Amino acid sequence: MGIEDLLATQGLQLPPPPEPVASYIPVRMIGELAYVSAQVAMVDGKILHPGHLGDPVTLEQGQEAARQCALQALSALKEALGSLDRVRGIVQVLVFVASAPGFTDQPKVANGASDLLVQVFGETGKHARAAVGVAELPLGAPVEVAVLAKVD
Amino acid sequence: MGIEDLLATQGLQLPPPPEPVASYIPVRMIGELAYVSAQVAMVDGKILHPGHLGDPVTLEQGQEAARQCALQALSALKEALGSLDRVRGIVQVLVFVASAPGFTDQPKVANGASDLLVQVFGETGKHARAAVGVAELPLGAPVEVAVLAKVD
Amino acid sequence: MGIEDLLATQGLQLPPPPEPVASYIPVRMIGELAYVSAQVAMVDGKILHPGHLGDPVTLEQGQEAARQCALQALSALKEALGSLDRVRGIVQVLVFVASAPGFTDQPKVANGASDLLVQVFGETGKHARAAVGVAELPLGAPVEVAVLAKVD
Repeated sequence: MGIEDLLATQGLQLPPPPEPVASYIPVRMIGELAYVSAQVAMVDGKILHPGHLGDPVTLEQGQEAARQCALQALSALKEALGSLDRVRGIVQVLVFVASAPGFTDQPKVANGASDLLVQVFGETGKHARAAVGVAELPLGAPVEVAVLAKVD
Repeated sequence: MGIEDLLATQGLQLPPPPEPVASYIPVRMIGELAYVSAQVAMVDGKILHPGHLGDPVTLEQGQEAARQCALQALSALKEALGSLDRVRGIVQVLVFVASAPGFTDQPKVANGASDLLVQVFGETGKHARAAVGVAELPLGAPVEVAVLAKVD
Repeated sequence: MGIEDLLATQGLQLPPPPEPVASYIPVRMIGELAYVSAQVAMVDGKILHPGHLGDPVTLEQGQEAARQCALQALSALKEALGSLDRVRGIVQVLVFVASAPGFTDQPKVANGASDLLVQVFGETGKHARAAVGVAELPLGAPVEVAVLAKVD
């Protein structure tokens, strides 16, 4: 079963791919590596759960945003590669969490993205990761996720 | 026309290359990848436009700092490679923006670096990118930019 | 003399390797690159010197935490590779420093990690680096360090 069939059987729907913009692009490939531009979670053109984790964004909302970022990264990869079956695994995930003072559960937020990637790719979806708490994110997003994938 | 002739015709002048320091180096190469150490914009030995975006640093000042960071990264690459003609493209750019509370235009700031790289390298200068808002940067810099280039 | 003998002669002791967790892993390898998940410094199961640099964590404490992060990254590499002799160098180090307002000595903190890596690997331990000041880190850690190594 291909990755896209798997997504369908799991009830996972890819969001529309991110629009290419002027001077950077959604995915840059070099050799076996595909660098996906960092995603902030958008639903219907609006940031999902804007604000900082801890105040007012809850852990559950942050995890949902991280998961949506990962789905958007997959959508970008599908657009760039033609098919997600060309993705051979996930190498690294960087998770930036907009954090109110005292919020230190960045790894739990990041699991929203990591768990989704392992759900989709299984063992080869397991990756190295960094999760840090930042001051502000674009458009007031609560989470930003950059994915580095291995492709054939 | 070589990249360095192109810089000249565009009126772009490379700053002096960053000094190597004790335990890290301006550029680390492995295979086709050249990792450039993150740059903060310096002019005449001083940080350009110190402070946080939003207060007191303006968007235009932040973009100018980001552009200067990109020029410094190119200067580091030229020093390491002998010639910028060995740069085959830009793979990824990480942009860290010192951000006052409520400043969420990190992508516009980052365009200062991205646009410069595309101006210089054209299509192969287009890259994957992350732009995030951080609490503080070295020496009070407003922007820090890490470039990953493809080299021959 | 192998790297592990060298560690012993220098009085450097590797901490226990980080535990693999559900959806991300301590080290992800692809070709010659080994991505190590970002480390926060733990001693006896507790965060070393919790808090922000500048208030209350001192520069010396931050450097000690960064150094411990680097040792943990080496421990993770040893666990993944079987021996540190398979490490051919350090490519890139990302250092995230939890920073109180006005703290701008992130590079000095990061030297705690960089100096350790050069002490262990010599010339091939020299790496590209980024050091930034972030709002919060997991579990209240003062420093988080992600290492990218070259392996055979």
